[in-house]
Amino acid sequence: MNFHVLTLFPEMIEQGVNTSITGRAINNGLLSINAVNIRDYAFNKHNSVDDYPYGGGAGMLMQAEPVYLAYEAVKEQIDKRKQENIKSEEVTSTEPADCSEVRNSDLQDENSKKRPLRVVYLSPQGDVFNQKMAEEMAQEEDLVLLCGHYEGIDERVLEEIVTDYVSIGDYVLTGGELPAMVMIDTISRLVPGVLHNDVSAEFESFQDNLLEYPQYSRPEEWRGKKVPPILLSGHHANIEKWRREQSILRTMERRPDLLKESNLTDKEKKWIRQVKRERKEAEKMK
Amino acid sequence: MNFHVLTLFPEMIEQGVNTSITGRAINNGLLSINAVNIRDYAFNKHNSVDDYPYGGGAGMLMQAEPVYLAYEAVKEQIDKRKQENIKSEEVTSTEPADCSEVRNSDLQDENSKKRPLRVVYLSPQGDVFNQKMAEEMAQEEDLVLLCGHYEGIDERVLEEIVTDYVSIGDYVLTGGELPAMVMIDTISRLVPGVLHNDVSAEFESFQDNLLEYPQYSRPEEWRGKKVPPILLSGHHANIEKWRREQSILRTMERRPDLLKESNLTDKEKKWIRQVKRERKEAEKMK
Repeated sequence: MNFHVLTLFPEMIEQGVNTSITGRAINNGLLSINAVNIRDYAFNKHNSVDDYPYGGGAGMLMQAEPVYLAYEAVKEQIDKRKQENIKSEEVTSTEPADCSEVRNSDLQDENSKKRPLRVVYLSPQGDVFNQKMAEEMAQEEDLVLLCGHYEGIDERVLEEIVTDYVSIGDYVLTGGELPAMVMIDTISRLVPGVLHNDVSAEFESFQDNLLEYPQYSRPEEWRGKKVPPILLSGHHANIEKWRREQSILRTMERRPDLLKESNLTDKEKKWIRQVKRERKEAEKMK
Repeated sequence: MNFHVLTLFPEMIEQGVNTSITGRAINNGLLSINAVNIRDYAFNKHNSVDDYPYGGGAGMLMQAEPVYLAYEAVKEQIDKRKQENIKSEEVTSTEPADCSEVRNSDLQDENSKKRPLRVVYLSPQGDVFNQKMAEEMAQEEDLVLLCGHYEGIDERVLEEIVTDYVSIGDYVLTGGELPAMVMIDTISRLVPGVLHNDVSAEFESFQDNLLEYPQYSRPEEWRGKKVPPILLSGHHANIEKWRREQSILRTMERRPDLLKESNLTDKEKKWIRQVKRERKEAEKMK
């Protein structure tokens, strides 16, 4: 998967995505991250990309043209690569191959060819980013992330190129760079091959809309605090049951909004009601 | 304000917060960002900080002791600085000064002394970060941000040191570093003096729970798209009215959940109902 980040601070993106999992995936050729400096597409001699907003108001706006030219350059590059891939496929398709395999990859290519290029504008105005959105975007071959700065970007270029408005949360940041890095990290982890299988298991609890259970590592006793004995018992079924209960309890206490979306069994629902009743009574006794 | 980040990737934090507004505030002495490498507090000869989880399961856990030692080192440093400040205040308070000013700053110091040190663990288990939480945290003199990695951190050290569990959103990231940077950026902007007054106005629309209106900069016509004539009219009252309407319309279309929390006048509420009615009718006509 290829990320193309349109930004005034390309070095921030380049430095930020080089660590651990993303960095390894780039080295393995599973990901590419292309940070494009919008300032390289400034069209005046001062190299400026911002100007005052019409109608007055505080701060400066990023102008339409440099953003558009940067986008066009990225789009051209992607189109060229796709054309080259088609040509090289035409050459290789004359060679003998497993037909079913060829047909399958052809179909995938057809799908990605038909889809328009997705351009995400990072903005507090956008839909709030979540794991489901990340899963969907991880299907794309190319994703363009546009980072605003100052007071924002001239509306007309947004209308022209942006397909998705995305916010990473209800808080105000200096620019779109950190949100772009957050999206790249989250989406990359969902691209096949980026995570080792042993690590990918960690998603499961979150995907069932339950928070993770508490975890413990060596030593058995740390500053007077002991590991819950059940985890040392070796009874896997009991451990699983305890962990599931802990996940449910935690979600109930910290994020009751998630609990409604999780797939609880009738038995578990009954158990929650009982726990709540017991806690209420304990509260009264105080 | 002083941020202390406990992390396995201090260079990621150091590089990420050096740009634009945060970087300038660090140079001006308004902020300090201290990235502490947890690995420096590894207590075995292999310098390792992680181990297998008790009870089995995928991945590795960060162990309690190195995290605790890193936290203790930060706490000692903060306590020492506070002691020194008290001493230097005792010295300076014998000198003549504006009494009302001294009393005011004494009061603030008293408040921050009484408060326990806040330690935030960045985790999908946490309360979801928002602008209000950022405003509250911007009142602290020191804030410790603890970044997890791998499968998480041994529960016992979290129980021991963490005061706040915070998640920046419902998505899974590789570690707590990007969320810590997001929190630092958001909170820093609320520390007095970090933003110039002209920039800080940009908050207003978000703080009233309305999304920002569209903005336009030069040229008047860009690739066939014109700036809305009202913005060129020079009638400030009309421009303000149009911008407010655009903010309301946008919030209605993109984030109706925010609209309920915003302070709309009765006239504006009536106007929204009318717009909705008109749109419904237009929909029927198609």
